[in-house]
Amino acid sequence: MDIPTYDDVLAAHERIAPYVHRTPILTSSYINGLVGAEFYFKCENLQKAGAFKARGASNAVFGLSDEKAQKGVATHSSGNHALSLAYAAGRRGIPVTVVMPKTAPEAKKAAVIGYGGRIVECEPSTSSREAVFAKVQEETGADFVHPYNDPRVIAGQATCSKEMIEDLGELDAVIAPIGGGGMVSGCCLTLSTIAPKTKIYAGEPKNADDAYRSLRAGHIIADDAPQTVADGLKVPLKDLTWHFVSNHVEDILLAEEDEIVDAMRLIWQRMKIVMEPSSAVPLAAMLKNKEIFAGKKVGVIITGGNVDLDRLPWMKA
Amino acid sequence: MDIPTYDDVLAAHERIAPYVHRTPILTSSYINGLVGAEFYFKCENLQKAGAFKARGASNAVFGLSDEKAQKGVATHSSGNHALSLAYAAGRRGIPVTVVMPKTAPEAKKAAVIGYGGRIVECEPSTSSREAVFAKVQEETGADFVHPYNDPRVIAGQATCSKEMIEDLGELDAVIAPIGGGGMVSGCCLTLSTIAPKTKIYAGEPKNADDAYRSLRAGHIIADDAPQTVADGLKVPLKDLTWHFVSNHVEDILLAEEDEIVDAMRLIWQRMKIVMEPSSAVPLAAMLKNKEIFAGKKVGVIITGGNVDLDRLPWMKA
Repeated sequence: MDIPTYDDVLAAHERIAPYVHRTPILTSSYINGLVGAEFYFKCENLQKAGAFKARGASNAVFGLSDEKAQKGVATHSSGNHALSLAYAAGRRGIPVTVVMPKTAPEAKKAAVIGYGGRIVECEPSTSSREAVFAKVQEETGADFVHPYNDPRVIAGQATCSKEMIEDLGELDAVIAPIGGGGMVSGCCLTLSTIAPKTKIYAGEPKNADDAYRSLRAGHIIADDAPQTVADGLKVPLKDLTWHFVSNHVEDILLAEEDEIVDAMRLIWQRMKIVMEPSSAVPLAAMLKNKEIFAGKKVGVIITGGNVDLDRLPWMKA
Repeated sequence: MDIPTYDDVLAAHERIAPYVHRTPILTSSYINGLVGAEFYFKCENLQKAGAFKARGASNAVFGLSDEKAQKGVATHSSGNHALSLAYAAGRRGIPVTVVMPKTAPEAKKAAVIGYGGRIVECEPSTSSREAVFAKVQEETGADFVHPYNDPRVIAGQATCSKEMIEDLGELDAVIAPIGGGGMVSGCCLTLSTIAPKTKIYAGEPKNADDAYRSLRAGHIIADDAPQTVADGLKVPLKDLTWHFVSNHVEDILLAEEDEIVDAMRLIWQRMKIVMEPSSAVPLAAMLKNKEIFAGKKVGVIITGGNVDLDRLPWMKA
């Protein structure tokens, strides 16, 4: 296991600076008032490709030698990592192939193609995905950039909490949503180094609470296809992210589906930003655990903003 | 006619700084690519109370002597000015009365009350509004803060384009939506003083094109109750705003209803911000007048973000 260090984060930040936004941090006195806390929302929904994943993907793509880069990059993802890797590869001008289930939303496919990516479809099963992906790699010799279990990706995501500490000074706590654990691992890597007093929390949907149960069990628990409105958070921890999560996360807090949708609507209404259900999980979890955060200065990571504007989850079908 | 000067803008900026956000400026390479221009979107939807109107309202409220302030402020508005005046009065801790038509959206009424304002209802006609408002003023002795035809309000709105020039340097053009002309007048006041080479454009709905026709006729034309999805832009110019618009606006560009909705959706999708239909009018107008803006550095004012999230205009009823 190749564990990234804070030196990797420093290198990543310099490497990706020309290709990603230093995203703004927004506040809402109304939401502060609900908890009696000082919240600072780091808006990665305003990031390139609409998600923090542009950081890790750019770090992987721009860290390749020219020789390796020639053969391009590849991944499997139907979400923000697919878009972000296509974005980063497009900026470097190298080939990128994304293996996506046939059933992936057309909007996501169109976005990958819009950034110049190539899509190879698979059946919506793990076995098909792995078989198709192996073939793609064999044919192209492309470098595999895993959505989160990759030291380059984690070092890239870690630049987000680095910017928060630089802009805000020390924080009592930072909270981010947890799915595979890439962003949370990045927070662990950065904060344990430059802000060791900052407690790290993660928010997770009750309907996909594998990380929560993993933390309590002391080993990775992976569920098969959990269902939640927070569709970016269905994937399980892997060895690298487990390393960070198990060592540095203070606690994982859960939220029900309707609480996630309510928190999402609240953020849209009050903060006037478009963000996806996954990004609302931390606020939903904090609103039911106010005692932990009251009186504290808390950084909250809004992870992404890629959402189907025709199907918002608070609207009746 | 009491015409505000740039000294009033400087005083306003200092006066309101503790009560309003210096809003962020966002960019979108995708939208730049559509026109071949460099757009800088000044996000007043992220302003206090969700609109640039918080600037003018705060300037009026905090500019009052203690004696005058005691009696409070009052206005008639069913839109962002109502919310903003309630916000500013709440911050100063003085009474605020808003005369609103019975038919105004419940969400807007609730927001005014949420900021501590008092609502007095009138019939949805000009005569009823004026009669009810006169009674309110007589009873309270409150200071009338007009939504736009007020030098204090225009000086407050003028701080927005001041921040743009400070943050971005000189611009080839600035464009804002035009209804009553408060924001556009503020741009005229600031830019004619500190950036006289910057051309000032306004975007207006074709369905409520009274300012467009006024500029061509050389005098104010006021329409009776125009209908447009851009509900913030239905009101006519008044003498103060006409003074600025007629002297400094390069041109007013029109957009059709469907073009406004498409531009709104495009901004939500690509820039991940919640903004109201009125705020999309400038982009809609620029997308059909690309030749004016191609190759130019353009500041675009996103005026507000108060929208009914259950009824987005691109969704079928």
